[in-house]
Amino acid sequence: MTASPPPGRAGARTADAGPHTTDTGPYTTDAGLLSPVRAGTPVERAVSDHAWLRAMLDAEAALARAQAAVGVVPASAAEAVGRAARADRLDLRALAVEARESANPVVALVRELTRAVAALDPAAAEYVHLGSTSQDIFDTAAMLVARDALGLLRTDLARIAGAFAVLAREHRDTVLPGRTLALHAVPTTFGLKAAGWRGLVLDADTRVAGVLAALPVSLGGAAGTLAGYVEHGADSGRLLAAFAAETGLRAPVLPWHALRTPVADLGAALAHTTGALGKVAVDVLSLTRTEVGEVVEPGPPGRGSSSAMPQKRNPVLSTLIRSAALQVPALATVLTQCLVTEDERSAGVWHAEWQPLRECLRLAGGAAHTAVELAEGLVVRPERMSAGLRLTGGRIVAERLVAFLTPLVGKGPARDVLTRAAEASDRLGRPLAEQLGEEHELAGRITPAQLAHLCDPGAYLGAAAELVERSLREDAGPFLTADGQR
Amino acid sequence: MTASPPPGRAGARTADAGPHTTDTGPYTTDAGLLSPVRAGTPVERAVSDHAWLRAMLDAEAALARAQAAVGVVPASAAEAVGRAARADRLDLRALAVEARESANPVVALVRELTRAVAALDPAAAEYVHLGSTSQDIFDTAAMLVARDALGLLRTDLARIAGAFAVLAREHRDTVLPGRTLALHAVPTTFGLKAAGWRGLVLDADTRVAGVLAALPVSLGGAAGTLAGYVEHGADSGRLLAAFAAETGLRAPVLPWHALRTPVADLGAALAHTTGALGKVAVDVLSLTRTEVGEVVEPGPPGRGSSSAMPQKRNPVLSTLIRSAALQVPALATVLTQCLVTEDERSAGVWHAEWQPLRECLRLAGGAAHTAVELAEGLVVRPERMSAGLRLTGGRIVAERLVAFLTPLVGKGPARDVLTRAAEASDRLGRPLAEQLGEEHELAGRITPAQLAHLCDPGAYLGAAAELVERSLREDAGPFLTADGQR
Amino acid sequence: MTASPPPGRAGARTADAGPHTTDTGPYTTDAGLLSPVRAGTPVERAVSDHAWLRAMLDAEAALARAQAAVGVVPASAAEAVGRAARADRLDLRALAVEARESANPVVALVRELTRAVAALDPAAAEYVHLGSTSQDIFDTAAMLVARDALGLLRTDLARIAGAFAVLAREHRDTVLPGRTLALHAVPTTFGLKAAGWRGLVLDADTRVAGVLAALPVSLGGAAGTLAGYVEHGADSGRLLAAFAAETGLRAPVLPWHALRTPVADLGAALAHTTGALGKVAVDVLSLTRTEVGEVVEPGPPGRGSSSAMPQKRNPVLSTLIRSAALQVPALATVLTQCLVTEDERSAGVWHAEWQPLRECLRLAGGAAHTAVELAEGLVVRPERMSAGLRLTGGRIVAERLVAFLTPLVGKGPARDVLTRAAEASDRLGRPLAEQLGEEHELAGRITPAQLAHLCDPGAYLGAAAELVERSLREDAGPFLTADGQR
Amino acid sequence: MTASPPPGRAGARTADAGPHTTDTGPYTTDAGLLSPVRAGTPVERAVSDHAWLRAMLDAEAALARAQAAVGVVPASAAEAVGRAARADRLDLRALAVEARESANPVVALVRELTRAVAALDPAAAEYVHLGSTSQDIFDTAAMLVARDALGLLRTDLARIAGAFAVLAREHRDTVLPGRTLALHAVPTTFGLKAAGWRGLVLDADTRVAGVLAALPVSLGGAAGTLAGYVEHGADSGRLLAAFAAETGLRAPVLPWHALRTPVADLGAALAHTTGALGKVAVDVLSLTRTEVGEVVEPGPPGRGSSSAMPQKRNPVLSTLIRSAALQVPALATVLTQCLVTEDERSAGVWHAEWQPLRECLRLAGGAAHTAVELAEGLVVRPERMSAGLRLTGGRIVAERLVAFLTPLVGKGPARDVLTRAAEASDRLGRPLAEQLGEEHELAGRITPAQLAHLCDPGAYLGAAAELVERSLREDAGPFLTADGQR
Repeated sequence: MTASPPPGRAGARTADAGPHTTDTGPYTTDAGLLSPVRAGTPVERAVSDHAWLRAMLDAEAALARAQAAVGVVPASAAEAVGRAARADRLDLRALAVEARESANPVVALVRELTRAVAALDPAAAEYVHLGSTSQDIFDTAAMLVARDALGLLRTDLARIAGAFAVLAREHRDTVLPGRTLALHAVPTTFGLKAAGWRGLVLDADTRVAGVLAALPVSLGGAAGTLAGYVEHGADSGRLLAAFAAETGLRAPVLPWHALRTPVADLGAALAHTTGALGKVAVDVLSLTRTEVGEVVEPGPPGRGSSSAMPQKRNPVLSTLIRSAALQVPALATVLTQCLVTEDERSAGVWHAEWQPLRECLRLAGGAAHTAVELAEGLVVRPERMSAGLRLTGGRIVAERLVAFLTPLVGKGPARDVLTRAAEASDRLGRPLAEQLGEEHELAGRITPAQLAHLCDPGAYLGAAAELVERSLREDAGPFLTADGQR
Repeated sequence: MTASPPPGRAGARTADAGPHTTDTGPYTTDAGLLSPVRAGTPVERAVSDHAWLRAMLDAEAALARAQAAVGVVPASAAEAVGRAARADRLDLRALAVEARESANPVVALVRELTRAVAALDPAAAEYVHLGSTSQDIFDTAAMLVARDALGLLRTDLARIAGAFAVLAREHRDTVLPGRTLALHAVPTTFGLKAAGWRGLVLDADTRVAGVLAALPVSLGGAAGTLAGYVEHGADSGRLLAAFAAETGLRAPVLPWHALRTPVADLGAALAHTTGALGKVAVDVLSLTRTEVGEVVEPGPPGRGSSSAMPQKRNPVLSTLIRSAALQVPALATVLTQCLVTEDERSAGVWHAEWQPLRECLRLAGGAAHTAVELAEGLVVRPERMSAGLRLTGGRIVAERLVAFLTPLVGKGPARDVLTRAAEASDRLGRPLAEQLGEEHELAGRITPAQLAHLCDPGAYLGAAAELVERSLREDAGPFLTADGQR
Repeated sequence: MTASPPPGRAGARTADAGPHTTDTGPYTTDAGLLSPVRAGTPVERAVSDHAWLRAMLDAEAALARAQAAVGVVPASAAEAVGRAARADRLDLRALAVEARESANPVVALVRELTRAVAALDPAAAEYVHLGSTSQDIFDTAAMLVARDALGLLRTDLARIAGAFAVLAREHRDTVLPGRTLALHAVPTTFGLKAAGWRGLVLDADTRVAGVLAALPVSLGGAAGTLAGYVEHGADSGRLLAAFAAETGLRAPVLPWHALRTPVADLGAALAHTTGALGKVAVDVLSLTRTEVGEVVEPGPPGRGSSSAMPQKRNPVLSTLIRSAALQVPALATVLTQCLVTEDERSAGVWHAEWQPLRECLRLAGGAAHTAVELAEGLVVRPERMSAGLRLTGGRIVAERLVAFLTPLVGKGPARDVLTRAAEASDRLGRPLAEQLGEEHELAGRITPAQLAHLCDPGAYLGAAAELVERSLREDAGPFLTADGQR
Repeated sequence: MTASPPPGRAGARTADAGPHTTDTGPYTTDAGLLSPVRAGTPVERAVSDHAWLRAMLDAEAALARAQAAVGVVPASAAEAVGRAARADRLDLRALAVEARESANPVVALVRELTRAVAALDPAAAEYVHLGSTSQDIFDTAAMLVARDALGLLRTDLARIAGAFAVLAREHRDTVLPGRTLALHAVPTTFGLKAAGWRGLVLDADTRVAGVLAALPVSLGGAAGTLAGYVEHGADSGRLLAAFAAETGLRAPVLPWHALRTPVADLGAALAHTTGALGKVAVDVLSLTRTEVGEVVEPGPPGRGSSSAMPQKRNPVLSTLIRSAALQVPALATVLTQCLVTEDERSAGVWHAEWQPLRECLRLAGGAAHTAVELAEGLVVRPERMSAGLRLTGGRIVAERLVAFLTPLVGKGPARDVLTRAAEASDRLGRPLAEQLGEEHELAGRITPAQLAHLCDPGAYLGAAAELVERSLREDAGPFLTADGQR
């Protein structure tokens, strides 16, 4: 997990770099085969079962250290717990299967950890998981895993935003057809498009950053009163502060076993993230279409090759990103729904969060990792954009002609003449300017030179360049945002 | 819409208080019959079709005034637009049906508005919707409607949080069984439960407030370059600022026709809100069950009566709130998914947002309005809670007994003896203390008086009271939160 | 509701054609403004609040008649109930608002109906809703409303399938580029595309037909034992049969207050339907793009006009259909989730079904109604398709050239030479055949005439024509289907 | 995959029983730790990455055999492909990671398979994947995997239904409180409850069976025309039939690369399944609550033990089942949404199906496997049910008393007196019969003996016993069903 060193007392997290040695091969249920958007990306490892197991052990060790810090556990015992809490000594698969007996993996984990501690220091075994409850450990671990994953994610989002800033600046004045409802509308610039992508990515990052900064420890004991911890002599406030310090997570105002804001927030921020990246992907796909060809995805030889068709270089990066964007909102909904959880801990609602949370983290992280390559290498083809602007014989600026003619002939007639001329221009394959030149209402009212100028797509860009410049001056979200601070 | 006066140039919004006079009766598709959670609540009217229509007219009028302010439109024309923009003069149903021809209601609205302006001031008609596009008007109107709805929502959330603060304070020391996975776990207090509800509601409110403060105007023109506005002579930055000032909405960094952060944010905040209220509802339902009876919903005579069973007083408030909580996350997902929208304006993705957005607003608003009554009137029955604590013959404090015995006999044996004694106590219907008194491992290690004290549920509350106090000192979110500021 | 006369004792349904006379104007929450896909379509009226109210009254009347048929209620009383059960005499809005007091609209409805019956025949009033429960009436009404809506839907699906059959036959041999991952792949035919659309629509119809044929009455009494009915003297089996006969619905094996198969099935079938129509819509949008232009949506002058751009004729039908396809799956999920409903009747889960069910019905119905016009009027432009095939200089048949060359040079070399030649052809804007002619590996192995033939897209259509023919011989689903019968 | 031998030419599937030997340990992303509902259950292995890989190889081998059967491929080559297609020789993880280059795992798989075939028989290598496309192989494999998983699922559903039949019969007359909106309503029987569970499970099974019987092969070639296959000399119809025969899957009417009925159907049937099981789970949880205790989950010692509280035996089976029921509908929605997929193969929509499909299969399969144990071992406690019936002093039959009194005093007065008496009975903790005995309206109208009889919950069961008997005579769905056949 070197990619995302946790803040604060990060060094305290266990250092076992190596993976578990148990051969889980035969049981391997998921090695990424069905999810190429994240297969092999750093986030995949950061949220793997192995990472989760390690985080649970880290949480137990941090709890013991925190209890030592407030005088409830001998320092030597805490130290023994820390030494024993090594994921590579546990049989991950066995723990997974055994979790069926208690509906969570912590019960068996505590037993195994206790055993390992006893082997190091018999007297220390009494202090493992002291006064604690499964959910404190599991939820704290989930926050540690989320922190690592969001750290990776933010690094990638920053690179993506940076790459789009470069594109926006470079193509501030590169004109291409603006498209609405599938049709050419009026001209826009590729810079403005890239600036929009950047804005949306920064919006996502703002939300991710907010969630990341607030990830809390879980400390409630059996039913959220901390009674177990207090019974063993801890001052609840000091213990909470110490646990937060040990993990580098935040101290929440209340135990959150059944108040699931942190998990719902993760879902919302991650869905926003894949939504933002998905928007980029569908735009790239739209511009990549054979008939359009205004951008080309980057890639080494062989990237995007088809199993059958040698002429194809499929836009695989956008494809993968879009595949994540189609999955995460539904998974995030599960997390939002799990806010509705009964009593001090629900039977099933808590348990429904785990896999969707991991899936949201790795799909968003994988999509961002994929988008870095897309954003940094995207090939822009201005000559194709120019060709696209010419495709409709000037009809792409019909709006402007209405505006020009309105003072001359009135709004209704101006619109009518343009509607008629545009239709004829399309039907006859004839430039709009030429067609308009024959409209007798316009005779004498507009010169060919004026018409030629008015029909230049590059002269009808409104505030596109200013918008690009203005947006690039904002170097962080909020952008289009839910934040009262701007 | 007096309930939620918009900030800023609020007075500028049209004042037609009366509803449309067109009899839409025969066509009435929804008068609330299938959605009692919001039927008749203020938010329902605030987001009705009539309100939406009025907001679109307000947007047109505000645009004309903004254009007048930057010198593009004569003041008299802007004034005529403002006078003509009255929803009660339009045939709402006809506009709705006609929207099928252009896939949005603005095209026909502009035609009708132009007609109405022309009747007042023929010269002004040219200035209606000048340089504009349907999406600018519709999206700005959506933000105006959302502002009104969120204003109502926040008022209700504040009342709910206030009522829970009272309950938390009053019942800080009212003990009841903490329940996890459907079973009695350890004791907790009703005050802590109410404090948790309050925390979750404040979390929701924090999110809603963030979204509310950031609701932006939409100003992009046909494809997001503002070319139409600029063509008519406007400085884009000044026009944007003027439009924002006229509406009291924010000026976004970029046009957001295809960058849908504001709508996705609304969905996320509203789903969080119904999630928070839904948590309260399922807790109330759990405590209301016939066998539990620890709380009773408030209500006048007749409330909650069944069509068949005279003995029942159904918990209808919780029922209604829960019904909303089950719907909103799915609807909000539609909004999140609509972030993935192609080109400068999509064909269908934008259009998919409208009804789900309205539904999220009115379900969340209706649920909050319903929850005000629930929170302010909830009847708490401490005597039933006491009875509940006695139900398991002291087994509810078994955790504590393990903690007490661990130093005496070791952790494993302590747990074993309690497991055995608890099982026997349950089987034989005998108090746990009595049963333990016969365990020979414990002979001489624990006195009956100690046992009696240890078995008092009210003496095993951990930090419950402190948690309540601490949480009540926080008078606003963030609480468990996605915000780096705490 | 003449559009879809119910089967069986259909005539027994109340005949009040006129709408309620109460002016619900000021309260009108939804007249279709935000949902143009269904505004003004027949299904909208079929599932309106008014229709739902009428269906509840029909259910009460049918129950009274059924009870008369089994001798529990005097025939005169049943007749009085039937006469009194007129929706136009009730204040729909008042009932909607009053439903908040009991969490469903039936309690107040029964009171009003009883009053109306008493006015006609005081002795009959005792027999209103005899032994019944709100859910029996509401759920039976929901099935009656669903029946009407599905009837309309199936009529439209049949027309759509018919129109696609015509297109498939007519364009069996109309060649256009097959597109995969946004790029030209190999040639296909428009007939095969239309045949696929038809197949998917027939798949949807098969599912809808299955659900429609199985819609059940609800008859369970207060907790699903029929105790209330039996107490009043009814034989439960005979009463169930009579109620089914009176309504034309099916008699379920068990009361389904908390066994929600019928509602979940409706959701699944309707989501499949909008999915099928949504597939058509995105294909039409893809083919409509300015650069492609292979199809054009039908429509009278003015259809699809933009508020700003006179040259545009937006594909509004596809846009509207897609907007429905983006909403229904999420709404249907709510219905599926509501299978998980506790006890004999849940507090909130049942209530969460109502509005999403109606929304699924009217969005699917509206989408189908919109798709009829699209399917029957779609303009196909074979000349644009031909132009599209020429766009890549023959690279669209590169797969075929590999197949041809493989026996000559081996599979790997064949693929390599084509990959290289395709890349050069693209880069140089040169026909692939020409480029290949210069590849020295191929010297003497392939003649220019062979190359020319191999590069003819129309000669590389595989089984397209046969597939069209074969599929058209199937005149109903199942097609690609979940049905063991084929 | 011995657990579910495929029908038809099942023997033809590759027999490599052993898992891959590559140590995927370090990369293990999911060994079940976060999903105890399926960890270690048979379905988990049936849908693992390893199983998917094997199924893709099986699909390649079956295709080669089918092509041999129609004379396009030499029999010896087909045989070599079959021998080479062994999953245990491939590096699963490497394939997963490499899939990022082509957006699917088939491209690299074909390369590796070709290499392996060449090692066995150089001449055969040319015939690997002949004329095929990635989607044909992947989708056929998905159907093979789904067949195995659904086979396991149906076996478990049959056991569950069988166990509920036993419970229904055995407890046909075991009376317990019927509960609606969280409150005691009228009496019902546990047999009727179990019969309802069985009905819902049979409904699910009917839907699963329909999907299972219809799972199709995928055979379309690059763009659904089968051109590649035909080019190599195959008759398309014969090849399709042979491929179907080789795999034991169905031959679809049309290629379904972009017509996704089979996948959407899988989602719908699996969501129905977890919905049905989830209903059982929440009912069991409701009855398990400490205050209710009418049922107890089965389990060996230690099952359901808490990490902290020795007295608890958590209902872990229901908890796990419910956790699945909360996830599957959202995942199935992704599959339904993927019906909306553009062109001949989409860029991203197809790819979004894979992981959600697997997750639906294994969560539903795991939930069913878990439910077998729950259903077969559920402990019913009639004495607690009796106690529950007495809890409200007879108020649970208030409905009956209204019915009895209505002929005596009129419906309104009867209801009024019962409402009043029930309220007093509750407030005073006094039996309803006693309270009623003092109502002067009733003086002389009802004898104490009558009252006593009327207040016997066991005498007010309506048709419960008949419903149980009737439903048990149905030994398969459809039950409450979407099927016109009943």
